[in-house]
Amino acid sequence: MRIVDWADEAEGGPAVVLLDQRALPHRTAHLHLTSVDEVIDAIRTLAVRGAPNLGVTGAYGVALAAHRHGTATPVAVAAVRAEAEALATARPTAVPLSLGVRRALAALDGGPAAVLAEARAVAAEGAAANHAAAGRTADLVRDLRPGRPLRALTVCNTGPLATGEGGTALGAILRLHAEGDLAEVLACETRPLLQGARLTVWELANAGVPHRLCVDSAGPAAIASGLVDVVLAGADRIAANGDVANKIGTYMLACAAARSAVPFVIVAPEETIDPGTPTGVDIVVEERGDDEVRGIGDTLVTLPGTPVYNPAFDVTPAELVTAIVTENRVWSPTPAASHV
Amino acid sequence: MRIVDWADEAEGGPAVVLLDQRALPHRTAHLHLTSVDEVIDAIRTLAVRGAPNLGVTGAYGVALAAHRHGTATPVAVAAVRAEAEALATARPTAVPLSLGVRRALAALDGGPAAVLAEARAVAAEGAAANHAAAGRTADLVRDLRPGRPLRALTVCNTGPLATGEGGTALGAILRLHAEGDLAEVLACETRPLLQGARLTVWELANAGVPHRLCVDSAGPAAIASGLVDVVLAGADRIAANGDVANKIGTYMLACAAARSAVPFVIVAPEETIDPGTPTGVDIVVEERGDDEVRGIGDTLVTLPGTPVYNPAFDVTPAELVTAIVTENRVWSPTPAASHV
Repeated sequence: MRIVDWADEAEGGPAVVLLDQRALPHRTAHLHLTSVDEVIDAIRTLAVRGAPNLGVTGAYGVALAAHRHGTATPVAVAAVRAEAEALATARPTAVPLSLGVRRALAALDGGPAAVLAEARAVAAEGAAANHAAAGRTADLVRDLRPGRPLRALTVCNTGPLATGEGGTALGAILRLHAEGDLAEVLACETRPLLQGARLTVWELANAGVPHRLCVDSAGPAAIASGLVDVVLAGADRIAANGDVANKIGTYMLACAAARSAVPFVIVAPEETIDPGTPTGVDIVVEERGDDEVRGIGDTLVTLPGTPVYNPAFDVTPAELVTAIVTENRVWSPTPAASHV
Repeated sequence: MRIVDWADEAEGGPAVVLLDQRALPHRTAHLHLTSVDEVIDAIRTLAVRGAPNLGVTGAYGVALAAHRHGTATPVAVAAVRAEAEALATARPTAVPLSLGVRRALAALDGGPAAVLAEARAVAAEGAAANHAAAGRTADLVRDLRPGRPLRALTVCNTGPLATGEGGTALGAILRLHAEGDLAEVLACETRPLLQGARLTVWELANAGVPHRLCVDSAGPAAIASGLVDVVLAGADRIAANGDVANKIGTYMLACAAARSAVPFVIVAPEETIDPGTPTGVDIVVEERGDDEVRGIGDTLVTLPGTPVYNPAFDVTPAELVTAIVTENRVWSPTPAASHV
């Protein structure tokens, strides 16, 4: 299943190929984008999402510009650079997007083929990091909970749809399933935007992984009821002391896991760990729009105009985190406080 | 605002008057029910809900039957008893419904006026218990968190819509507001059925109480962020040791409150405490239908046929409960473990 890819011979010339995530889970459709304007529109409307995937999309977008304009004349190079600049700022806060664009641009002197090769390298490196972290996580989880098929609980979407080939926390789950060590996944729906219900369930069903969907508040209860062997989650940002910012709802799973001595494991690329952020207190929590909570899709679920508290993520203190697994290492930030 | 009431002079004769909760929060409409069949239909379709309100509705339903058939002949009395039996079983698991019906029936020898008087007594006693518990809770919360306007967090719906005049946990919140001691209420939306978003927000808005709505998983994060002074919740059943079964999502709020030393207070009628249930382990958790989680109203939010885990409530261990407040007392089941 292609999430973000390149096609040499699409109708209309070379193309960036995207799985249209706006249509999921009800319809699986691919977009063949043959202009940078179309790529920018796909990014802005969330047809493609997830920081790592945006980086790959940005790099392929520059390759598309280089193929369309060529790189043989100063005018052509200027046109590629202008389109790359527009791509890099299609979503201003997505750092990997501009990083992916910059890497591809740096190969411009080598011509269109060199730019495409660099874009493919961005994708391949992300995938390699994910596969390394997934394998390391699977090994860790088997060590922590030996001798049985595992029941894992996860939140939000951390599969290839969001994080590129392989996936992070969901990548580890897919690995455990492939190796015969997984009994079931409990997927939290992840209000307000329902990434768990819409995207994680779709990825689990596609991969043939046994799973059940639950409302977010049922996650802690499932842990307390002995239905969960390990909690696996991703991270948006990790402070230097091991405090973890991730999707709203992660903190309560960590609280419940600690009370029940269930391992709580974060899977994320090494670059998620920010040495410039000493602790979780230094992380500013983004509050998002009221309408996400007032409704679900187009359905209003409360009184119009109801005031809303809508933090996009929460901060889990390091002392509740059993381990943080990256492509490089297994890190237990407060091993003395480990509850497992 | 009448939730469940009696009208002597409605068109078509005496009537049971119900606020139609199926239409909330988008429309406020009252039903004037002049036959027991209509009352049963209202109960079955959840136009009226909440165990205490069902008890009052059942008692008024018997009064309606007694007014329509009279009680002067054996045939009339048999007709009233037959309708009362149908009422008592309109929702088989609602114990207060059959209790309310039985109390009203016991007054049948006194004629229709006596039956109506008994139904009014059922309503009045429930209201008096609620008001007593609300006042006691407000005093307790002021003692626990003195000298400031309070920010309270609540889950599900525990106002007059569910629990009769006065309300339980929401009754305490309304009392604190009326007495000038409340700054804000955070209301958890309460997936899957969204009683918080649909009903609690409606009751808070009607009463002019400052409030914000949040997704359930934002509740624990709000507690950890210092935005909450007290958590107030109701109870479906309380074990003899103080373990509390309540709406799914209550347990995670208790975990977060304990970690942040925020008081976690349960407000419920004394009859909720069940001496026949030694601990929470003895409480069987009901699992409800898959469609509640797969969709929101008529909107499907995941793949059709997705397997679901849908526990209706969870069990909060007594050691996480600061106090249980009833119409009779303030009970701290494990005072030694109190975290406040």
